[in-house]
Amino acid sequence: MNSSRNKANERIASLRSMLCVGLDSDPAKIPALFQSMQHPVQEFNRAVIRATRDHAAAYKVNTAFYESRGLAGMRDLEETLQALPPECLSIADAKRADIGNTSRQYAKAFFEAWPFDAITVAPYMGFDSLEPFFEYEDKLVFVLCLTSNPGSRDFEERIVEDGRPLYRSVLERVSAWQRNGNAGVVVGATKPGLLQELRRDAPDLFFLIPGVGAQGGSMQEAVSHGADPEGRSAVVNVSRALIFPDGEFSSVEQFEAAVNREAGKLHESMIGML
Amino acid sequence: MNSSRNKANERIASLRSMLCVGLDSDPAKIPALFQSMQHPVQEFNRAVIRATRDHAAAYKVNTAFYESRGLAGMRDLEETLQALPPECLSIADAKRADIGNTSRQYAKAFFEAWPFDAITVAPYMGFDSLEPFFEYEDKLVFVLCLTSNPGSRDFEERIVEDGRPLYRSVLERVSAWQRNGNAGVVVGATKPGLLQELRRDAPDLFFLIPGVGAQGGSMQEAVSHGADPEGRSAVVNVSRALIFPDGEFSSVEQFEAAVNREAGKLHESMIGML
Repeated sequence: MNSSRNKANERIASLRSMLCVGLDSDPAKIPALFQSMQHPVQEFNRAVIRATRDHAAAYKVNTAFYESRGLAGMRDLEETLQALPPECLSIADAKRADIGNTSRQYAKAFFEAWPFDAITVAPYMGFDSLEPFFEYEDKLVFVLCLTSNPGSRDFEERIVEDGRPLYRSVLERVSAWQRNGNAGVVVGATKPGLLQELRRDAPDLFFLIPGVGAQGGSMQEAVSHGADPEGRSAVVNVSRALIFPDGEFSSVEQFEAAVNREAGKLHESMIGML
Repeated sequence: MNSSRNKANERIASLRSMLCVGLDSDPAKIPALFQSMQHPVQEFNRAVIRATRDHAAAYKVNTAFYESRGLAGMRDLEETLQALPPECLSIADAKRADIGNTSRQYAKAFFEAWPFDAITVAPYMGFDSLEPFFEYEDKLVFVLCLTSNPGSRDFEERIVEDGRPLYRSVLERVSAWQRNGNAGVVVGATKPGLLQELRRDAPDLFFLIPGVGAQGGSMQEAVSHGADPEGRSAVVNVSRALIFPDGEFSSVEQFEAAVNREAGKLHESMIGML
């Protein structure tokens, strides 16, 4: 059995939470009190992790917010990965993929150099661009399927020869390409009806569901429509609405308390459902 | 006018070369003589740059081969970017894209933190995932269209509602979305007939053409089918077949001579065509 998938499902079951904390740690948005520290983003992330640890099944590190600051940002990414709780699924939200010999290097980057449990990848270039990720049988590979943004209309939702949208083809192919249960898909919470339909037709895939909070999706709908028949195999990501709570904070403790309250509320909304 | 596009076109015209040198600098493949140096990849790249500078219109840095070695690799990427000749187009072959606020961070990474002239991006998530890149009016944004790998069949070539393959929709949308002539597409040299067709129907786009050399495409076909009617606005990438010449090398000079010979041959094959 796939150890990353098992870890995630054990955590979901024991905590009764599908919360994935999205560390989209934009330096321009992190509270002023962290700005004077030597490593603002690292300290901010550590505070968020402490504040959410009892409620989170997974953490998702969005590589863009680290690459945007060059080497200093990549150091923050590395430190953040090391600070993630080992009982939670760690996801590199990297949206990578290229021809085979290049994807092999990306897989090495996010499964070895930075040893995440899981990665997000883009399907456009097809099988040989994804195969190097699937070769890691104890990792989880989340392929973009139906995303939460308006642009999903432009290509993902185009109707192909079989009369169905392209993202349905992605779903089917990914199911066929996985090894040892290591495939997942990214399906946005902003389209709950379609989420339900895709989950029904792919009971064996792990779902990463973004779009709750700032993008407008509902946590309860994401959980009820995204979980598999056993109430497992899905995590629901919340980033901005959780890690940037409203208000001014005069201490790290005060900030953590605010994030902890938000995480607690999100957790509570799921407990009865799992 | 777009300054990156102008720079590339002036270089193509003055040199009569569309050669793009792909720095897919896999440490496992670089000659033994570099391995004992303090920064093997940096020294290897500097040697390749010296050996190709008189023949190259562009350099493409494939981010995967740097990320795969974590922070040390990213330092090599940064040093390599600084060593690129300013008269050549510098391309971050990054294949990024995500929802808008995240793509904004990726654009910042590869246009500001690491100031490349151009980037490759993936279209799957649609307009708002590409818009933040197009907002940089003096850069070039190469959107994956019809790639050189076998997996292009899986999704890129699927027939959509209008009876044509998905990649044709990508081509048209990208033409419409660009600003200030800053859009390009990635079209593989492994399908020369289709390359010719796409170039004919998108005379205003800049073409980045991979697939020559190790992947089997021909340089001459790529140039004759990929150039615009003025013999401009395309670069043809060669990576492995150029930077990893056969043979054993006992000195950097010897290695550079071998790479220089290859680059000269590629250049010569184009001069009469441009």
